[in-house]
Amino acid sequence: MQDHTNTSGTAKGRFASLTPLLQPRSVAVVGASADATRIGGRPVSYMLRGEFQGRVMPVNPKRSEIQGLPAYARIDDLPEAPDASVVAVPAAHVVDTVDALGRRGGRSAIIFSSGFSEVGAEGEALQRQLLDTARRHGMRLLGPNTAGAFNSTIGFFGSFMSGLERGFPLPGRIGIASQSGAYGAHLLGLARARGLGTPICAATGNECDVTLGEAIGWMVENPDIDVVMAYAEAVRDVDSFIAALEAAHAARKPVILQKVGRSALGQKAAMSHTAALAGDDRVFDAMLADYAVIRVESSAELLDVAYTATRRIYPANNSLGMLTISGGAGIIVSDLAEQLDLPMPPMPEPAQADLKSAVPFCSPINPVDCTAQVLNDLTLVGTFGERMVSDGGYASVMAFFSQAGTVPSVAPKLCAELKKVKDAHPDRLFVMSLIGEPEQNRPYEEAGFVLMEDPTDAVKVIKAMGRLGDAFARPLPRREAVPPVTLPEAAPGEAEAKQLLAAHGIPAVPEKVLDSAEEAAAYAEQIGFPVVMKIASADIVHKSEIGGVLLNVADADAVREGFQTLLDNAERHVPNAKLDGVLVARQIVGGVECFMGIQRDPQFGPVAVFGLGGIFVEVLKDVVFRRCPFDREEARDLILSIKGAPLLQGARGRAPVDLDALSEVLANLSRFAVGAGERLDSIDLNPVFAMPEGQGAFAADAVIQIKTDPLNEQK
Amino acid sequence: MQDHTNTSGTAKGRFASLTPLLQPRSVAVVGASADATRIGGRPVSYMLRGEFQGRVMPVNPKRSEIQGLPAYARIDDLPEAPDASVVAVPAAHVVDTVDALGRRGGRSAIIFSSGFSEVGAEGEALQRQLLDTARRHGMRLLGPNTAGAFNSTIGFFGSFMSGLERGFPLPGRIGIASQSGAYGAHLLGLARARGLGTPICAATGNECDVTLGEAIGWMVENPDIDVVMAYAEAVRDVDSFIAALEAAHAARKPVILQKVGRSALGQKAAMSHTAALAGDDRVFDAMLADYAVIRVESSAELLDVAYTATRRIYPANNSLGMLTISGGAGIIVSDLAEQLDLPMPPMPEPAQADLKSAVPFCSPINPVDCTAQVLNDLTLVGTFGERMVSDGGYASVMAFFSQAGTVPSVAPKLCAELKKVKDAHPDRLFVMSLIGEPEQNRPYEEAGFVLMEDPTDAVKVIKAMGRLGDAFARPLPRREAVPPVTLPEAAPGEAEAKQLLAAHGIPAVPEKVLDSAEEAAAYAEQIGFPVVMKIASADIVHKSEIGGVLLNVADADAVREGFQTLLDNAERHVPNAKLDGVLVARQIVGGVECFMGIQRDPQFGPVAVFGLGGIFVEVLKDVVFRRCPFDREEARDLILSIKGAPLLQGARGRAPVDLDALSEVLANLSRFAVGAGERLDSIDLNPVFAMPEGQGAFAADAVIQIKTDPLNEQK
Repeated sequence: MQDHTNTSGTAKGRFASLTPLLQPRSVAVVGASADATRIGGRPVSYMLRGEFQGRVMPVNPKRSEIQGLPAYARIDDLPEAPDASVVAVPAAHVVDTVDALGRRGGRSAIIFSSGFSEVGAEGEALQRQLLDTARRHGMRLLGPNTAGAFNSTIGFFGSFMSGLERGFPLPGRIGIASQSGAYGAHLLGLARARGLGTPICAATGNECDVTLGEAIGWMVENPDIDVVMAYAEAVRDVDSFIAALEAAHAARKPVILQKVGRSALGQKAAMSHTAALAGDDRVFDAMLADYAVIRVESSAELLDVAYTATRRIYPANNSLGMLTISGGAGIIVSDLAEQLDLPMPPMPEPAQADLKSAVPFCSPINPVDCTAQVLNDLTLVGTFGERMVSDGGYASVMAFFSQAGTVPSVAPKLCAELKKVKDAHPDRLFVMSLIGEPEQNRPYEEAGFVLMEDPTDAVKVIKAMGRLGDAFARPLPRREAVPPVTLPEAAPGEAEAKQLLAAHGIPAVPEKVLDSAEEAAAYAEQIGFPVVMKIASADIVHKSEIGGVLLNVADADAVREGFQTLLDNAERHVPNAKLDGVLVARQIVGGVECFMGIQRDPQFGPVAVFGLGGIFVEVLKDVVFRRCPFDREEARDLILSIKGAPLLQGARGRAPVDLDALSEVLANLSRFAVGAGERLDSIDLNPVFAMPEGQGAFAADAVIQIKTDPLNEQK
Repeated sequence: MQDHTNTSGTAKGRFASLTPLLQPRSVAVVGASADATRIGGRPVSYMLRGEFQGRVMPVNPKRSEIQGLPAYARIDDLPEAPDASVVAVPAAHVVDTVDALGRRGGRSAIIFSSGFSEVGAEGEALQRQLLDTARRHGMRLLGPNTAGAFNSTIGFFGSFMSGLERGFPLPGRIGIASQSGAYGAHLLGLARARGLGTPICAATGNECDVTLGEAIGWMVENPDIDVVMAYAEAVRDVDSFIAALEAAHAARKPVILQKVGRSALGQKAAMSHTAALAGDDRVFDAMLADYAVIRVESSAELLDVAYTATRRIYPANNSLGMLTISGGAGIIVSDLAEQLDLPMPPMPEPAQADLKSAVPFCSPINPVDCTAQVLNDLTLVGTFGERMVSDGGYASVMAFFSQAGTVPSVAPKLCAELKKVKDAHPDRLFVMSLIGEPEQNRPYEEAGFVLMEDPTDAVKVIKAMGRLGDAFARPLPRREAVPPVTLPEAAPGEAEAKQLLAAHGIPAVPEKVLDSAEEAAAYAEQIGFPVVMKIASADIVHKSEIGGVLLNVADADAVREGFQTLLDNAERHVPNAKLDGVLVARQIVGGVECFMGIQRDPQFGPVAVFGLGGIFVEVLKDVVFRRCPFDREEARDLILSIKGAPLLQGARGRAPVDLDALSEVLANLSRFAVGAGERLDSIDLNPVFAMPEGQGAFAADAVIQIKTDPLNEQK
C-alpha cells in the first residue's frame, strides 16, 4: 500500500474542508472488527474488497491483526495521521476517541455510533461536547448516528450500509447525499438495479457538523460527479444548503431532491393562524425556485431525472417534438405536456407537406405520427427525425417505438437512423420510449439516447431538463444587504406599528389631525381625493350622530368648507367639547382588499405571505409565500402567482390595481422583516388596500409581534 | 384439430354476443397469407404457434395451402360456419366479404382493414354500409381499423399485433381492452416485462359495432378474468360503457382505466362560456365516481394497480399500517398517505409498550419503525407484524425492507415470518417494498405479497384497493325514470323560462303583479317578508324617480299602505299613465349567489354544473359537474364538494344557507334536463340565490337554449 496524493477528483472550492472525509488518503477504523459482517468490520472488509487506494489502519486494543491488516492497539500508535477515521465505538467513548484522533492529527471522523441528539437532552449534551472537541482540533465530523460515506472512485468505504453487501456501486457520475442512511442505501440499490452509477455517497445522520448542504456542495465541486441525488427530511442549516445550490448553479450541475416531512410540518404549523399558512411546504418550494433543483415525489422519479441529467443536456426554452408509431401514445404525451406547460408547437406547414408525401397516412403536425409503416423502410425514420429537429426546431425530441423498437429485425437500423439525427444535433435532448431487455436497450443507451419505458415518464424528464436549462440560463438572484430596522422593546400598538412601517416604505392609509382649514386642504391635496373628514375630539364619541363625519369630500374648497361645518356642528351639539382639530384621511374607493404578512419560519427565517383578503385567505387559502428579502420584480411575480390574480388585473370590469405600488410595499415589507432581525416574530397587515392604478397601496391595519426574549427561542 | 365446445370461460351475461368474437370455436382468416410476417399471415402463424383449440380456416383464392393448413378459395367453400373471421382485405372488398361471411353463417368478424371513418366522409359512408351488412346477418364486428383481439386461454389470435412476435402473453387473469391497437400492444409488452399475465385482449379500433364498453363488459363477465386494464381516447357509447361498469361492480372485478384526450377536449370545449366549464375532463371523472374504476395517468400506474388487484383483496374503510426498517421511508409514506387521504391511525398504547420492550429503540406508533435490529432476530418481524394486524387493526399493511429483505441470509426467514401473519389474516392487503432480482422476489410473490420497489407506489396501490373496496361495498346509484318535459318550439324568453322551470320544482324569485292592496298583502304573506313593491305600468320607465319603488316592506299592513302610496305617487307624477297594478316580489336578503347550469356533453348528454356566483365561477373556476339525473343527496354532496363550500355553511359569520332547498333545486334541474331530451341545449341559472336556512333557493335569471333542428346535431 503506497502513500499517494489524490488530486484528481478533489473538490477545491468552498466545500474543500470535506475532502479529507470524502476523498481520504488514509483511514483509521476505530472499533474495527475481525468479523466482516459486524458494523466495525464492514468498512475494513469493504475497503479491502474495493482496493482502497490509501492506507487502512484498524484500531483494536485486543488484536494485532484485523482481516489481514496490521491493527493498532491505540490511536496514538497510528503510523500516520488519518485523513478520515471511522468511529464505531459506544457513544460513551466517542468524545475521548475523537479527542485522541485530533491529537494524532486526524482531519475528519465518521461517527457511526448512536445515542446522541436522537435520544433526548442527555444525548444532545454529549453531541455538543463531541462537536466542541472536534472543533478544538479543527476536525470535520460526519454524523453521529450515520451509516457513513463512501467514494468508490478510490475504493473508500467508510460505511456499514448493508446495501454494499449486495454489490458495490457501479461506475458513473451521480452522487448521493442523504440524511437517512437506510434510504440512501435504498437509493443505491435502486440505482444498481437500473444500471446507474453512484460512486460517491454521504449519509449525514444527526448533522452535528457536516450538513446535507455541505455534502451536496462538495459533490457538485467534485469533477467526478455531474448530478447529485439528495434526500432531506429537514434542512437544518439553510446557509450551507443555499451555498451548495449556488455552487451547483455555478458548476452547471443539477441537484435532484426528494424532500419529505410535509405531514409533520403541517401538524407543527397548525399552531396559529398565520403560522398555519406560512409553515406550508410551499415556503420550501418558493426558496428552491431560483436554483437548478428538481424536487421529486418518489425514488423512481429521483432516479429517472438523475439518469436523464447524466446526459448533461439542459435545453433552455424547452419545446417537445414527438415522433410516434402510435396515435394513442401521442395523445397521452400531448395531454401531459399541456398539463406540465411544456410547449409542443406544430411542424411548419411545408415540412408537414413533405412528410405527408413521404408517408401518405402519417399525421405530420406534432405529435408526428409516422405510423408503423416506417418499420418497412426505416430510412423514413431518419427523414422524419431530421425534419423535426431542423424544421420543427424542437429542443427536445422523444420517439415512441415501444417494443417495435427492440425487435431484432428493426433495432439496429432504427438506432442507426436516429443516431445520425442525434449526432448532427448534439445540443438536443433525445429520449426514446422503448420496451426491451437490457441487452436490447444497450445499443440505444450507448448511442446516447435517454430510455424511458413509459411515454409519460419521458415527458416528465424532458420537462425537468428544460427547467434545469432555464435555471442555469438565469443568473442567481442578488441578495442585497438590507439596512437594519430598530424594533421597539415590546410589541407596538397599531398606531406605532403603522408609523414604524411607514418609515420603511410600507404606508398606512394616510390620515392626519389638522388645526386649520388651510392645513386640512393642503394635506388633502397631498394625499389625494376623495377624503374623509372627522371631528377630532376625545369628548365626542358618536361623531356621525352629531354631523361630525363627512364622506366623499372631493376637492380643496370642499375641505375648507367641511372644516368649518364640522366645527359648527360640534359647537352646536356638544358645546363644551375640547376639540383637537379635524382628522383628514384618504377615503378608500375602488381598492381591492389584500392580505400581507411575515412569519418566522424555523428553517428559513422571515417568510412573506401574500393573498387577497377576506374569503380568499380564510376559505380558499389562496396565498403564496417567499423567503425574505426580495425585490419589487420578485414581489410582482409572487403577487401575480395567486389564483385570484385576475381580480388585481381588472377582471369583471374593475379597474386594475396599482401593481407597482403593491409590489413595492411587499418588497419593502420583506426587507423590513430581514432588517428587523430575530426579535421580529410576525407581522400581519390585514387588509392592505391595493388602489386603482397610480393611486398606491395602503395598510389599513398592522400588527407586529415581537419576541421579548430571544435567548428562549429555538435556533 | 377437433371440434369441441368451449364452455369454461364463456361470458353468459349481457355481453354474451361477443363470445363468438373473443372465445371462438372456429376462425376463418380472409386474406390469409403464406408469409407469416405479413398482416394476413400473422393470425394464422400465431394460432398455429398458440395451438388454437378450434379450427383455423385460411381463405385465399390463389393457394390451396397456407402455412401448412388447407386453404379455401372462397368463403362459400368454408367447411363450417366460422364463429369469428379475420378480414385482412382492402377496404373496398370488406363489405362484400362480410356479406359472404354472413351468408355462410359467420357470427362475427374482426376487420383489420383501414380506410373507413378515420379517413373522412367517404370512409364513413363505407363504414355505415359495413355495419348495415353485418346487422342484416346478425353478425358482431370488431373494428374496422383494428389490430384485432386475442384469447390465449384457447390459443386464439385474431390479431396482427407485432408485440406478439416478441412472445405470447403470460398466463394470468388480467384483460386488456384498448381503443388503440399500438397502445394495447405496448401494454401487453409492459405486462410481459413485469411478469403479468394478460391472456385476453381486444383493440376496438373505429368501433363501428363492438364498443370499448362491450369489450370490458365481456371480460368482466368472463370467469378467466379478474381485472380489466382499459385504454380509452373517447367513450363513444356511454350506455354500453356504463353497463360494463355495472357488470364489473356486480362481478366484483375492477376496471383500471387510462383515459386520454384532455387537451383535445379542452380545445373543443373553449367554444362557449358554459361549454368551457362543462367540457372539462372532470365531467368524465364525476361519472366514474360511482363505480369500481381506478383512473390512472400512466401505463406504469395502470400496471401497478392491475397487478395489485389480481390479489382480489379490496379493503373497504381502508387504513394503513407501515412496518419499516427506515425512518426516512416512514416519513415518505406518511406524507403521501396524508396527501391521498389514506388514514394511518396510531397503534394502541399497550401494543406500543410491548413492542418498545421487545426492541427498545423502535418507534412503535405508525409508521412502526422496527429498526434494522430486527434483522438480527427475524422472529421479531413476525411479532411486530402480528401486533400491527391484530392490535392495530389495519386493513392494509406495508412492510419496507428494501434490499435488506432480499439478502440471502435474511430473505427466507423474513418471508416465512411475514407469511405467517398474512396467512392468519387473509382479508388484509399485504404489500412489501423490496429491491431484488426477479428470482429473489419470487418467494414473496408466491407467498401472495404484492411487491413494489418504491414505497410511494406501494401507498398508491393500497389507496387504490381501498377505493375499490369502498366502491364494491356501496350499492350502485338507482337511475329512476324521469318524467318527460315539454319544451317550447323555440328558446323561451326569461319569463317563460322561469315559468317552465318553476313548474318542475326550480323556483324563480317569487313575484306577481296584483290588482288590490288585499291581494298584494296576501301574496306577500305567502312568499315571505321583506318584499319589494313596484308600480306596474308600461308608461312609467324610471319608477324609482317618481317614488314607484318600495324596498324592505316588512309586513302585511305595510304592504297595504305601500300599495296606496305607489298608486298615489303614480297619480301625482304621471297622471295619465295606464296602471297594470303593483308588482310584489320577494326581497333577497342574506342570500349567497350561486350559479347552476346544464350543458349537453357530446359523450354524456346533459351534465349539471354548480358553483358559487361571480368571481368564484369566472375567476377561480370553482365549479363541479355531474351527469344528469341525480337525486337530492347526490346534489348535496356535489354542492359541498366545491372549494368555496364553507361560504354556504356559515363561514365568516354568515348564516348557513338552505342546503336542503338548494340541493332539491339542483336535483330537479338535473331531472328537468333529462326529461327535456335532446332538444335541450343548455340552461343557465345565474344567479341562483341560496337563502338562509328554511328560506329556500331561487333563480334570479334563467336562460334556456333549445336546438331547433335535432337532425343537424352531431350524435
